[in-house]
Amino acid sequence: MMKLFYAPHACSLASHIALEEAGAPYEAIRIDFGKAEQRQPEYLAVNPKGRVPALVTNSGILTETPAILAFVAQSFPKAGLAPLENPFAFAQVQAFNSYLCSTVHVAHAHRVRGSRWADDPTAIAEMKRKAPEAVTACFDLIENEMLKGPWVMGETYTICDPYLFTVAEWLDGDGVDLSRLPRVIDHRTRMAERPAVRKAISEERGAA
Amino acid sequence: MMKLFYAPHACSLASHIALEEAGAPYEAIRIDFGKAEQRQPEYLAVNPKGRVPALVTNSGILTETPAILAFVAQSFPKAGLAPLENPFAFAQVQAFNSYLCSTVHVAHAHRVRGSRWADDPTAIAEMKRKAPEAVTACFDLIENEMLKGPWVMGETYTICDPYLFTVAEWLDGDGVDLSRLPRVIDHRTRMAERPAVRKAISEERGAA
Repeated sequence: MMKLFYAPHACSLASHIALEEAGAPYEAIRIDFGKAEQRQPEYLAVNPKGRVPALVTNSGILTETPAILAFVAQSFPKAGLAPLENPFAFAQVQAFNSYLCSTVHVAHAHRVRGSRWADDPTAIAEMKRKAPEAVTACFDLIENEMLKGPWVMGETYTICDPYLFTVAEWLDGDGVDLSRLPRVIDHRTRMAERPAVRKAISEERGAA
Repeated sequence: MMKLFYAPHACSLASHIALEEAGAPYEAIRIDFGKAEQRQPEYLAVNPKGRVPALVTNSGILTETPAILAFVAQSFPKAGLAPLENPFAFAQVQAFNSYLCSTVHVAHAHRVRGSRWADDPTAIAEMKRKAPEAVTACFDLIENEMLKGPWVMGETYTICDPYLFTVAEWLDGDGVDLSRLPRVIDHRTRMAERPAVRKAISEERGAA
């Protein structure tokens, strides 16, 4: 059985939802960021980066959300979570997820993890001040150019959907004006009703 | 024929090298950041993000380096640029490339593109000051934990190698002490000797 290491409200939720959607056999193991468990030797032996998610599989350990999501889609093809037979369509899925990890998640992280890129408290405060603007620019692009609807890639639900949902859950805390993102918010609402999403969230937040 | 939009010294070099390694039919088109061509309507019609790379294919336009690299590997399987038949091994390739785009490239970008995340010049200066430390931490992990050698994934050259080479080309400018990274530098040196790398670099920098 696979093991997914997660932290509540972190991007690991995307992998958690995908495992549920795939019907994969797995156990979810909570890492307590409040106790800095991600920096303890036990966890660094699993993931030297000291981050979540990490997925322990029969073949070895995987990290990085886009890689785990594609792995789940490829390992459980009957779940139909990615267009595996079409390299261009698969690349579109990957491009969307890559944008979330390299640009959107990063814009958000400047509100809460500025110490990764600066030591001076006034610089960290300045990053925090600008974060709503940077996150809004990202989500304007998603709203107007990228989200095809009803799901990210159009009529078919894919591994893009749990990842967008996970990042969109941060919008309120990021101080983004939700009224400019009706399609993203509609997507978030419909995602929240899916059994796999309810199960993953219940498992993560009920375990607090 | 595909068209790759690139800028010299940008991460688009990774896709350029991969297209060469694959023997793909393509044309490379330079975007001049000095003239802000990436923000002109002509280019925004290709890539609304205003970034490089963008790959125009017969099926449509792709962006984001990890997605383009996997697309090239899947579209030209005879080139053997990724372990396409093994979902776990493919996910390891993807995890490496995802780390480069979401963490390493981002750490580097704080030296040269701080205005993405702050307006205050003193905050931007503080990010620039800390960038060598953040990039060094990333490359320590690559040197000690991730680069299997001789290639990133071990004995077989993959789409991880042009991407690592591209990001490692920034180390000197990022003020990183190269003496702590002998394996990364050895990899960079061997990459620079490959015909595909020489051809891509010559095309990009000869066109200046």
